[in-house]
Amino acid sequence: MTPIVTLTTDFGNADGYVGQMKGVLLSICPELRVVDLSHEVPAHAIGAGAFLLETASAPFPAGTIHVAVVDPGVGTSRRRLVVRTAQHTFVLPDNGLVSRVLDREPGFQAWALDAAHYRRDAVSATFEGRDVFAPAAAWLARGVAPERFGPEVLDPVRLSSSPAPSSGESVVPVLWVDRFGNVVLDVPRAALPEGAVPRIRTAATTLDALVHTYGDAPSAQPVLLFGSAGYLEIAVSGGRADVALGLRVGDQVSLLL
Amino acid sequence: MTPIVTLTTDFGNADGYVGQMKGVLLSICPELRVVDLSHEVPAHAIGAGAFLLETASAPFPAGTIHVAVVDPGVGTSRRRLVVRTAQHTFVLPDNGLVSRVLDREPGFQAWALDAAHYRRDAVSATFEGRDVFAPAAAWLARGVAPERFGPEVLDPVRLSSSPAPSSGESVVPVLWVDRFGNVVLDVPRAALPEGAVPRIRTAATTLDALVHTYGDAPSAQPVLLFGSAGYLEIAVSGGRADVALGLRVGDQVSLLL
Amino acid sequence: MTPIVTLTTDFGNADGYVGQMKGVLLSICPELRVVDLSHEVPAHAIGAGAFLLETASAPFPAGTIHVAVVDPGVGTSRRRLVVRTAQHTFVLPDNGLVSRVLDREPGFQAWALDAAHYRRDAVSATFEGRDVFAPAAAWLARGVAPERFGPEVLDPVRLSSSPAPSSGESVVPVLWVDRFGNVVLDVPRAALPEGAVPRIRTAATTLDALVHTYGDAPSAQPVLLFGSAGYLEIAVSGGRADVALGLRVGDQVSLLL
Repeated sequence: MTPIVTLTTDFGNADGYVGQMKGVLLSICPELRVVDLSHEVPAHAIGAGAFLLETASAPFPAGTIHVAVVDPGVGTSRRRLVVRTAQHTFVLPDNGLVSRVLDREPGFQAWALDAAHYRRDAVSATFEGRDVFAPAAAWLARGVAPERFGPEVLDPVRLSSSPAPSSGESVVPVLWVDRFGNVVLDVPRAALPEGAVPRIRTAATTLDALVHTYGDAPSAQPVLLFGSAGYLEIAVSGGRADVALGLRVGDQVSLLL
Repeated sequence: MTPIVTLTTDFGNADGYVGQMKGVLLSICPELRVVDLSHEVPAHAIGAGAFLLETASAPFPAGTIHVAVVDPGVGTSRRRLVVRTAQHTFVLPDNGLVSRVLDREPGFQAWALDAAHYRRDAVSATFEGRDVFAPAAAWLARGVAPERFGPEVLDPVRLSSSPAPSSGESVVPVLWVDRFGNVVLDVPRAALPEGAVPRIRTAATTLDALVHTYGDAPSAQPVLLFGSAGYLEIAVSGGRADVALGLRVGDQVSLLL
Repeated sequence: MTPIVTLTTDFGNADGYVGQMKGVLLSICPELRVVDLSHEVPAHAIGAGAFLLETASAPFPAGTIHVAVVDPGVGTSRRRLVVRTAQHTFVLPDNGLVSRVLDREPGFQAWALDAAHYRRDAVSATFEGRDVFAPAAAWLARGVAPERFGPEVLDPVRLSSSPAPSSGESVVPVLWVDRFGNVVLDVPRAALPEGAVPRIRTAATTLDALVHTYGDAPSAQPVLLFGSAGYLEIAVSGGRADVALGLRVGDQVSLLL
């Protein structure tokens, strides 16, 4: 089967950095297929990258290799990882970017990405996406076993997760705002008690209308719904919830259960 | 022959939604090839999406499957369609998005996209692009016949087209403004009487210089030309016609014949 | 081996122009693989396009075909070229876009892209990317020899390069500002005298701290480093150098050696 490699970065699509990574991937493993997940992670925003990587990687077939590079520490001594879960393999800096994937798939194994012979000959100090992570993914695609890259790592860096919401009030952050202005909250449906009906309080208002889809909401009125990745989100039918409520990534709201 | 699936959406490239659709496509039909036409259709702008889908899909080889999702009614009871023309197959919500394709290729057949076994197991109410349209395209790519998805549909929703311009004056909308500021009007060359020389009147000015290409125009002066998709457009050599004339998508101008 | 065709343009990703080029490529050579380098070259900015094309094309495997279209003279009498270097083949308008590739690989051969039977049947006067350059690339991918397209061209248009920096002071332009605000200068490491330590003077300040990677720089302070493509750049760790120093593409700074 043709190997699939996906890319998630904060490189944007203008600078040619992503194209360079693809050149390296195809130089080492000409038959692999590259799929872009997103290159618009805000610069250096590891938390947002961890959210995008988890949600966008999920639908891919077993055996897919996911490369993610949001890496303010490029060229320094932070570790690099190959992480294998039941379904997928991840290649990325050890800075928490893989956190949400591991929250979802706790049965994983990880190795340091150390072996120099699976890198480009000259490794630039500022572009390990091209010189370290892309080559590693391409060698994995060619069948190199992950333990060949370095010693096992038992403690990948994890971002602190929001505490599992319990009854009463808890503070939850805004994880993401999408192109339509939908405000995604760090409240996975799976983490709520069975049958719980969440309400959200923001500086501006308290929301308790939980709808099934955007078209079910009264026009121009903010409502709650569980979005396509299973997270609670605030939406405004025919409008932008982020603008209506003045919310941005990293802001905090109150979850009432 | 390797099947080709193209994607046209209003999802943008930042949120990972397009990546998720690709994951589903490749899970069902690993050998298909995915090509992005545009994900920058303005949010919920069905008319602009219909224009982009028609123009961008045209050059693809016979047998290509085009998925288009600009779908303010996602999760509601609006129909979903598989449409087959002489050359291509289209998978999309039944909201007029296929209109301009059908204007170009009136000999089509359409079916409802109903069959539950060609969807993902759990269909989210907010992301049918991933859970309904992408799987249908992948099954079509694997050779499932379109009539297997549901009953024939004889009346796909059509957007009202501009009336065919006749002599005298008629009102035509701005269909699109491209990256260079060229203003595309809903005046297909094929709809004009043989030998007709169009003029355009805007609030600011009347244009009667019809040139062959941008380089033929005097610098900084708005001119008319037939663009690469066969529509009349207003251009300014070395400048932006949209800025020079204050025109945006949806504005109206007068066509004089 | 599956042929690879890359695309570098100033078309943006919204208008469907790039999708149309891919439709043409796949119609002529269904097995080729298309990779986007960048479509965000600023409109008509040949110099910036030449920089992106050189840096982004470099990591691709031998035999790759690179199509580049930044073409303010589309439809006029400017020449079109097929250029073959030791590693790659380039298909592009003859307006200097290939300059930096030729600076890097002086041993090249070039031919005019004239032969009408390797174009689309109807060539639009405004979209040769789709009607001339994409078809030529696809026929090259199918094995057509470059000399079949037209007579040899010995004098492709070259952009004037910055003079090789010598000791003392010289003026160098800002070539590019990337998504992180890093300011790339036209000072290739290879052009500096062995062991030279460059300093840069801008209107605002003089920079003499040369670091190895971003993480080595004191926070919020502008420093110099050699970036991943081998050019000198100004960076600010945890900030944007372009904003800190008020620099944009095309501005000039002083190099002190």
